[in-house]
Amino acid sequence: MPHKYKLTIAYDGTHFGGWQIQPNTNTIQEEIEKALALLLKQKISVVGSGRTDAGVHALFQVAHFTSDELLDLPPIHRSLNGILPHDIRITSIEKAPENFHARYSAKAKEYHYHLSLGPTHPPFKRLYSHHMPRKIDIDLLKRAAAKFVGTHDFKAFANQAYAGAAGKNSVRTIYRLEVIQEGDDLRLEFEGNGFLYKMVRNIVGTLLGVCEGKISIDEIEKIFTEKNRKKAGRAASARGLFLVNINYE
Amino acid sequence: MPHKYKLTIAYDGTHFGGWQIQPNTNTIQEEIEKALALLLKQKISVVGSGRTDAGVHALFQVAHFTSDELLDLPPIHRSLNGILPHDIRITSIEKAPENFHARYSAKAKEYHYHLSLGPTHPPFKRLYSHHMPRKIDIDLLKRAAAKFVGTHDFKAFANQAYAGAAGKNSVRTIYRLEVIQEGDDLRLEFEGNGFLYKMVRNIVGTLLGVCEGKISIDEIEKIFTEKNRKKAGRAASARGLFLVNINYE
Repeated sequence: MPHKYKLTIAYDGTHFGGWQIQPNTNTIQEEIEKALALLLKQKISVVGSGRTDAGVHALFQVAHFTSDELLDLPPIHRSLNGILPHDIRITSIEKAPENFHARYSAKAKEYHYHLSLGPTHPPFKRLYSHHMPRKIDIDLLKRAAAKFVGTHDFKAFANQAYAGAAGKNSVRTIYRLEVIQEGDDLRLEFEGNGFLYKMVRNIVGTLLGVCEGKISIDEIEKIFTEKNRKKAGRAASARGLFLVNINYE
Repeated sequence: MPHKYKLTIAYDGTHFGGWQIQPNTNTIQEEIEKALALLLKQKISVVGSGRTDAGVHALFQVAHFTSDELLDLPPIHRSLNGILPHDIRITSIEKAPENFHARYSAKAKEYHYHLSLGPTHPPFKRLYSHHMPRKIDIDLLKRAAAKFVGTHDFKAFANQAYAGAAGKNSVRTIYRLEVIQEGDDLRLEFEGNGFLYKMVRNIVGTLLGVCEGKISIDEIEKIFTEKNRKKAGRAASARGLFLVNINYE
């Protein structure tokens, strides 16, 4: 009878090719699977709540794995952090119900996108925010952001390969998209029932396009209707994006 | 008639061998001198307010240089940041009075030392704080910190090479040493008229020694009197240390 375990994980995505295992780059999933295999002396598959791209960070990512053994978790927790590189930390490990699934049980996710305003990009934020030296109209940004809240077909804001795949459901609900300014730090807080591949970064890119006068607010609705990825803004850089919460209630 | 210029600089010290030029490592001073030489087409010597060690950070470092030319500063500022690596940012450049000296004109300095409490070192703080997983007694730490405030001969808290040099004045005044806790983040704020080489890190190491029960509070006065570097604690790690202000008033 296999036992299920839930991991919560924080990582600095700077030096990884993203969450998901793929050839020719080191990934967070791979590092965790390698560490678990070393500890548990068997191949372990780790299932994450979803991918994060190369360079994207997580304050709170969730994954699960199963093991035939009933594990003594505190020493496993310590050993995992001992084996893992310092830019990946297991923040908790706990026994999960048999039917728990890191991806399918997730009800909502929260992402934050960080921007640094002002003429110079502070050195301590260079890997953790997108630099926007140009003056931006926060009211305009807020009005544009409001257009994304609610249930929409976000096909135009998913990455092209995905948007082109037939039969995929690209309807999602954004519960909250808040623009918070603290001095030169600007944070866009996204909460939704799910996000398509690159959706947050593509929305941020579109919002920056509005701030730069390249896209009008009225065009946003047209982009939704036309479902044409090419009309939306370019993806904003990965370094500004943080996965901050996943709701399983 | 040479003109004097004052630079304020922020840097992430992680990937540098410290402020001061030295062989076989890249340093912040060297990067700035190289960038200025490229822009001004002459060798430029940059004088900092003082050294910071390998791995030590600065939110606010000050340096000066002289040039025979009257420079148009805004384009120089932009070009410098264009040339410099992203972990060094010139935050301002301004014309300084002829008698300004980045080191000798400094009246006071402020350093912050950051500690992360709790079982895991958050990945985003791994390069910017010292991890202290052990529970510490904040009141004891505060009482020990108070012993360092005031005017003392800090010879026992200077690095050994320095402490051994004859005739050097090692009397300094610490105006303020505050212990500030915000959740798992602990910050030691040092303000003083000057700091000997490695003095802040050696004091922090001694305070951690007190927290770990290796050094008693009463011993601190004895260490001051005996002026023996070996009795004080080991230097705390460079990554937790930030130069945050220099007062020239």
